[in-house]
Amino acid sequence: MAEEDSEAIGLTKGRLEALSDGIFAFAMTLLVLGLSIPEKTTLVQSDAYALQLLFSLRPDFFHYVLAFLILGAFWIGHHIELNSVRGIDRTFVWINLLTLLFVALLPFSTSFSGDLSDVPVGAMVFEANLLSIGMGMFCQWQYATKDHRLTSPSLKPAYIRKVSTRTLIVPGVSVLCILVALTGSTWSTALYMTLPFVGYAVGRRET
Amino acid sequence: MAEEDSEAIGLTKGRLEALSDGIFAFAMTLLVLGLSIPEKTTLVQSDAYALQLLFSLRPDFFHYVLAFLILGAFWIGHHIELNSVRGIDRTFVWINLLTLLFVALLPFSTSFSGDLSDVPVGAMVFEANLLSIGMGMFCQWQYATKDHRLTSPSLKPAYIRKVSTRTLIVPGVSVLCILVALTGSTWSTALYMTLPFVGYAVGRRET
Amino acid sequence: MAEEDSEAIGLTKGRLEALSDGIFAFAMTLLVLGLSIPEKTTLVQSDAYALQLLFSLRPDFFHYVLAFLILGAFWIGHHIELNSVRGIDRTFVWINLLTLLFVALLPFSTSFSGDLSDVPVGAMVFEANLLSIGMGMFCQWQYATKDHRLTSPSLKPAYIRKVSTRTLIVPGVSVLCILVALTGSTWSTALYMTLPFVGYAVGRRET
Amino acid sequence: MAEEDSEAIGLTKGRLEALSDGIFAFAMTLLVLGLSIPEKTTLVQSDAYALQLLFSLRPDFFHYVLAFLILGAFWIGHHIELNSVRGIDRTFVWINLLTLLFVALLPFSTSFSGDLSDVPVGAMVFEANLLSIGMGMFCQWQYATKDHRLTSPSLKPAYIRKVSTRTLIVPGVSVLCILVALTGSTWSTALYMTLPFVGYAVGRRET
Repeated sequence: MAEEDSEAIGLTKGRLEALSDGIFAFAMTLLVLGLSIPEKTTLVQSDAYALQLLFSLRPDFFHYVLAFLILGAFWIGHHIELNSVRGIDRTFVWINLLTLLFVALLPFSTSFSGDLSDVPVGAMVFEANLLSIGMGMFCQWQYATKDHRLTSPSLKPAYIRKVSTRTLIVPGVSVLCILVALTGSTWSTALYMTLPFVGYAVGRRET
Repeated sequence: MAEEDSEAIGLTKGRLEALSDGIFAFAMTLLVLGLSIPEKTTLVQSDAYALQLLFSLRPDFFHYVLAFLILGAFWIGHHIELNSVRGIDRTFVWINLLTLLFVALLPFSTSFSGDLSDVPVGAMVFEANLLSIGMGMFCQWQYATKDHRLTSPSLKPAYIRKVSTRTLIVPGVSVLCILVALTGSTWSTALYMTLPFVGYAVGRRET
Repeated sequence: MAEEDSEAIGLTKGRLEALSDGIFAFAMTLLVLGLSIPEKTTLVQSDAYALQLLFSLRPDFFHYVLAFLILGAFWIGHHIELNSVRGIDRTFVWINLLTLLFVALLPFSTSFSGDLSDVPVGAMVFEANLLSIGMGMFCQWQYATKDHRLTSPSLKPAYIRKVSTRTLIVPGVSVLCILVALTGSTWSTALYMTLPFVGYAVGRRET
Repeated sequence: MAEEDSEAIGLTKGRLEALSDGIFAFAMTLLVLGLSIPEKTTLVQSDAYALQLLFSLRPDFFHYVLAFLILGAFWIGHHIELNSVRGIDRTFVWINLLTLLFVALLPFSTSFSGDLSDVPVGAMVFEANLLSIGMGMFCQWQYATKDHRLTSPSLKPAYIRKVSTRTLIVPGVSVLCILVALTGSTWSTALYMTLPFVGYAVGRRET
């Protein structure tokens, strides 16, 4: 398909951003479906029961907050990348769609790991999903900046490296989480709570 | 992360509004999932049953309408705030994302309090959620207007105070609701029906 | 709240259209949830069963198509109205939000009437919902055009009347449907299939 | 309705694209609901169970990926078409809405064929849905380009033919899939995996 000229694709950066924003916003909102309330008929109407129900949803809440904020970070990252991209081609669109495929999958993984919070495999599904999104974002950036394929020639190599590094933070932590989960621990996803500090440390070192 | 220049963030006000509009619109539409119909197989096909089913959904309808209109009011408030904001920085984006986290959570709280409408804790979850959204909106406004950080220097202090006051209306009523719920009442959410009058009264006093 | 100047509202026509478009698009897509498949564990893997399952979903498919296309017509109508509106005020925004409340409710009504397709009350819930959306659209138009409140003074009275008439087509058919349902018939929603012809006839008479 | 002038329709190409983008993004995200996890209460908390659960979701994952990427291809195709369209009329809007009706239906078909993956009818529902979307896109293009109805007179016939051919790729493969399914095979949807190669081959032949 490479032989088609860019005009023929009819895809502008703006449109791709619109679709991406839409899928990010929907995926972030759909996460809430992981917080499932039992069938109405089986509910007991008492304060004690209500509190117990909320308490039993603890791992689901934890994964909801984690997934929402990490998706927020990816969304910011997506815009940082697109900001430097001048025009897009078919390959870039497909890398982007593949990344969005994993973004849209996150409500499932979040719900899965929230429901199976006592077993390492539950957490690993969530972590592998975040790893996939992060790697998709990384590939996208590599593809766009390789020989200034889709970016301005004046984009500084230092900036390209800086964004590359930042894009690898979530995948890096995810690999660590998966390794911890492989040892049999069930609290591996808690490692994501270090993200703000890792982000800050990386930001420090750069300047 | 503060050391990055604003250009590097690649986030314009317009993009943040687009994501916010998406999450608001989506959360408002997902509220409808709180109105759950029993499994098709257990449905009895008679008019009496259909009416009884609708009647049993009364608290769910009430919470649906309440949540939809209050989210609508928050959406208006969000635009009033963003209207005065000139540019955004990373901290503002994160306060906004945290606020949206609670916006996206509302379909859960609405469903929860609609299903557990006979116990105070059910209502308190809903009220605490609205309190959180309102406080997020308040923090956002405080952050943006503090020393005209993100707003035009010509923005009048009286206007800043006016928006602050308005932003605190829903949180104020929410605190009142929670206090009433703590006394054991189950009708505390009904207090939100005073919102149009409170809003009108506040508007009066200002002029 | 009327005493606030329009600039303070911070709501442009464009924003309201964006939220409306979002809620229309989501509601139209959420309709599909009315087509519920039984729990996976209870599924029998045979062609005969699959066909029987599809066959049993007949009323759900019918209501899905009906609701999707009527929402599409309302969406077109919404744009016809907004096209003539120059600026918006707080009251207009609230009439619009109330209309959207019923738009977002339609996935519930559609699912309800699809599941309870053998009883008149099932159909009446769907019809009352469409009636409400239509009346909201009508009020909106009346409010905007009254004394050219939000429209250009040069908008022709004949055009205003024409849009008014068109806006009343769905509510009119809905009232008819409800009357038929009150007689005990269960096929009342089928009357909506006359809409293209009614629309055509009304269009004819106008020219 | 044809007698109305285009201004009266109040529908610009931009608005139609916005609604289409919304429905595409939303349908792509809703596909994830096909990956259903059993009720929390029936979950067994063990690694073996978690893996077995994931394994049992295999056909659902396969259909999720397939449906997501094909919708992505349709979304690209939609933009290629709209790119050549100058203005739109009522008929074009309705062909588009009918196409979107089938786009919004895909989460159902995907879930259906994932759940009933052992019977040909399950696959055929999915294939018939994709066939419908593709034919809708084809009709849309035929309508727009017929006598340059909605396109620029300078649009080259060779380009019109090229887009027509491409639009027919998915429907063509779908017909093949349905024929294979009619022979009793349950793996017919696997044929969609040839799409990238078919697309490439068609692209080759054209140049």
